[in-house]
Amino acid sequence: MASTSLDETYMKAALGLARRGLGTVAPNPAVGCILVKDGIIIGRGWTQPGGRPHAETMALGQAGAAAKGATAYVTLEPCAHVGKTGPCAEALVNAGISRCVMAVSDPDWRVAGKGLAILANAGVETRNGVCEMEAAQLNRGFFLRVSRERPLFTVKIASTLDGRIALENGDSKWITGSEARRFGHMLRAQHDGILVGSGTVLADDPMLDCRLAGLEGRSPAPIILDGTLQLKPSHKLAQRAATRGTVVFHQVRDAAKEAALQKLGVETVAVDDTRDLAAVSAILAERGFTRVLVEGGGQVHASFLKAGFADRIAHFSAAKAIGADGRPAIGDLGLASLGDAPHFNLETIRQLGPDILASYVKAE
Amino acid sequence: MASTSLDETYMKAALGLARRGLGTVAPNPAVGCILVKDGIIIGRGWTQPGGRPHAETMALGQAGAAAKGATAYVTLEPCAHVGKTGPCAEALVNAGISRCVMAVSDPDWRVAGKGLAILANAGVETRNGVCEMEAAQLNRGFFLRVSRERPLFTVKIASTLDGRIALENGDSKWITGSEARRFGHMLRAQHDGILVGSGTVLADDPMLDCRLAGLEGRSPAPIILDGTLQLKPSHKLAQRAATRGTVVFHQVRDAAKEAALQKLGVETVAVDDTRDLAAVSAILAERGFTRVLVEGGGQVHASFLKAGFADRIAHFSAAKAIGADGRPAIGDLGLASLGDAPHFNLETIRQLGPDILASYVKAE
Repeated sequence: MASTSLDETYMKAALGLARRGLGTVAPNPAVGCILVKDGIIIGRGWTQPGGRPHAETMALGQAGAAAKGATAYVTLEPCAHVGKTGPCAEALVNAGISRCVMAVSDPDWRVAGKGLAILANAGVETRNGVCEMEAAQLNRGFFLRVSRERPLFTVKIASTLDGRIALENGDSKWITGSEARRFGHMLRAQHDGILVGSGTVLADDPMLDCRLAGLEGRSPAPIILDGTLQLKPSHKLAQRAATRGTVVFHQVRDAAKEAALQKLGVETVAVDDTRDLAAVSAILAERGFTRVLVEGGGQVHASFLKAGFADRIAHFSAAKAIGADGRPAIGDLGLASLGDAPHFNLETIRQLGPDILASYVKAE
Repeated sequence: MASTSLDETYMKAALGLARRGLGTVAPNPAVGCILVKDGIIIGRGWTQPGGRPHAETMALGQAGAAAKGATAYVTLEPCAHVGKTGPCAEALVNAGISRCVMAVSDPDWRVAGKGLAILANAGVETRNGVCEMEAAQLNRGFFLRVSRERPLFTVKIASTLDGRIALENGDSKWITGSEARRFGHMLRAQHDGILVGSGTVLADDPMLDCRLAGLEGRSPAPIILDGTLQLKPSHKLAQRAATRGTVVFHQVRDAAKEAALQKLGVETVAVDDTRDLAAVSAILAERGFTRVLVEGGGQVHASFLKAGFADRIAHFSAAKAIGADGRPAIGDLGLASLGDAPHFNLETIRQLGPDILASYVKAE
């Protein structure tokens, strides 16, 4: 039997593998698996793009017959339901593993506790809860979708030290340096969707893609809050919707315009009010989004903070100032007192070239 | 002869001693001195409050006769002019030290190079430039006063992550946590003056003192930019001017009001325009200020950034948001392009409880 600290060491490695799947596996969780026998890692796996194969399948495939008697480290309870493939819990049993260490139970009602039960009933020694907090954070988007029917939202802000994202005239190229921008593209790669307001589309006609070499295929699906349906077929996001998908939320009906956009592959979703983030996020969850990066502007950021939907903030802060006549990173919040201010827990700070990246998690 | 790395080790220790004087020695530089003989520290000193005794005098006094043959580490070229006491360079020679390592030359024309010459001519081995950058930064206020006839200005900002320092209604208690506030009081202790606009005085009637236990005596002298002379004798800063000093810059003449304030010990200084920071800072330098902490509000901060007088920024950033309807940390800058934005070099980042402190130095 492995020591507690050894279990944690292997689990942390498995969490590192799991992380690779973020942004490519929705609506599935991003899972990592390591098989260890006699102190040697004989199999490693993580959820593959699109969600299949599962991490356990990959790791078992690597280990082959050597899996017999091994310990499996899995960052999420192995699945118990028959989907596109057989349940992983059974696969682990069939491969003859003798011990299974898990980080956290799967909240999916088709799994919750059942994966563990299959293993235990087959005589496999089980341990649950190793690196549980870290694993729950890693798959927070998946958990939120299952338990609250909404994705995880990460508000990304790239501002000056005084919280401005552009001059009054709109000039915003470039506020942060190349290191911060590259990190921003990495964030895009780790999210399923990227959400902006129509103002950003009209002002910048952005691509919202991931431009890191080798990760171009990991661009998130664009999501536009576009109350008055101002997206034109000529906009880049519409032009490339056929290959990347693009979801437009709007609250005006214009059959001709919708048809023109749909023809390009844009999904148009009519809602009563695009500012109703509870409705928007429920629809996004329904469509399988687990992790959505919110890239403003200020009005959109403010609406997420006001609604309590800013689960995380990734704040890139440049060592310069624009002044109060610049455009704010976060629009009006209409607070009555400081006690009402949305507040967060600082998770990490790092320096990226001349800039700072502060990562915050919503304080519950 | 000591090795280069050993010289740096001792010099860093001397810089640590020098730092103790910041905020209490103006218009003198804050200097540290360590005497080392046979690998043993036989004397330590730093400039004492008010500027005397000098660091060298303190260290020599500790070492006594043992100073003969020792190496002296001084963070600034020893003085060569006869002031309230004899020149330190001569005192080191008379004590029989055999080697003198210095960090940086004194820019004061009464010393520059002369201290070094006295030592060298007496046969003392000299080395200059050890930890030069660090020493020049440490005494940047002194250097600026001597070479550019103005103090060093540190703009202190305590804002939310979106750059707000108060709600629209003025509520700003408390944006940052106790750790950040304590650090802010330490900053006060390390500055000779603390500058605010009249708006801050009228809104908050602040004391602007250092409230750290044991450091109450290190409160900086309040400086108010008060164009229309709105400071009243009843304000706390006026009431306590007799013991702490308070300088008020104004541009309206009101003999009765001025007399009433002066009677309390307030120094009223009439200028053509209190927004002319070049004029204001020249007068502050004349009065001996080397380090001034600027504690806003937003309009005052903006004026320092616009004038290029924000030499340093100490930015405390809280993990919460107030939104665009809150009060900005930095007022309008009227930039035409992002290239014109005042920019800085990030010096250090640290976490203070739930908050971040980012220290910036103006990019030259």
